[in-house]
Amino acid sequence: MTRYARLRIYIGESDRYQHKPLYMYLLEWFHHHGFKGATVIRGIAGYGSHSKIHSVSVFRLSEDLPIIVEVVDEEEKIHGSLDEIKKLVKEGLITIEPVEVVFYGHREE
Amino acid sequence: MTRYARLRIYIGESDRYQHKPLYMYLLEWFHHHGFKGATVIRGIAGYGSHSKIHSVSVFRLSEDLPIIVEVVDEEEKIHGSLDEIKKLVKEGLITIEPVEVVFYGHREE
Amino acid sequence: MTRYARLRIYIGESDRYQHKPLYMYLLEWFHHHGFKGATVIRGIAGYGSHSKIHSVSVFRLSEDLPIIVEVVDEEEKIHGSLDEIKKLVKEGLITIEPVEVVFYGHREE
Repeated sequence: MTRYARLRIYIGESDRYQHKPLYMYLLEWFHHHGFKGATVIRGIAGYGSHSKIHSVSVFRLSEDLPIIVEVVDEEEKIHGSLDEIKKLVKEGLITIEPVEVVFYGHREE
Repeated sequence: MTRYARLRIYIGESDRYQHKPLYMYLLEWFHHHGFKGATVIRGIAGYGSHSKIHSVSVFRLSEDLPIIVEVVDEEEKIHGSLDEIKKLVKEGLITIEPVEVVFYGHREE
Repeated sequence: MTRYARLRIYIGESDRYQHKPLYMYLLEWFHHHGFKGATVIRGIAGYGSHSKIHSVSVFRLSEDLPIIVEVVDEEEKIHGSLDEIKKLVKEGLITIEPVEVVFYGHREE
């Protein structure tokens, strides 16, 4: 039985890769490598690994909004992509959790 | 001990059911069937099962924005709803994962 | 090996604590207590524990939009924070699930 996983990549909206928003680069990367789908969510506030490298005397939100890029696919395919993904994401957080896939695709009726 | 699960339904903003946005129909469906709560999140970009049925020579985002409908409730109640949910969702992705519920509800103080 | 978890707190946008939006109070709380990062997501529709205390004859969405505050950190640190978090969140839902952390932080190159 195929096992599935959810990959979540937490970055900032202003992060770039090759003059392009990193989240757009990641979407294209996943599409190019045959992942079934990807979703990009923008948060309204947050702080993260960026703030650790500032000296924060009073609490200050990151200037750029948080972005989560989320992919659900076969666990093996996701694990196989991690070395490449880690080269693209210089700052942020990457998590994986197992999920049960109840339905995926397009149904003719 | 009651076990809880999170159901996530990934669809498109333009998907409809009975002349109504599918995500609104699903919200009402969950409410009508006594689910404790539901949350609808809209992504800012994505691609998914729709794009598989197009011939995509260059990368192209889906025209409608991704929507995630999320429900946390008892695992048994969620599993019992899947046959009906699958009738409503013709395209997309449905996942389930177990979660621990620390607190749910309204506290008088 | 360190185990990680994701904490998710589902509240409403209009919830307040000490004259401040509750989600901002929570962000500051997590930052002050040394959590590595936090992300706030606003949904576009939903219903939840609030609606249970109204008499809902026809389906009605909550008037305030749903907010999810999400934190990923060491499982032990998250469990250790729950008593305090529950004092701040009077209405809503709090869930925890285990996650694998693939990468967290800032990389010099």
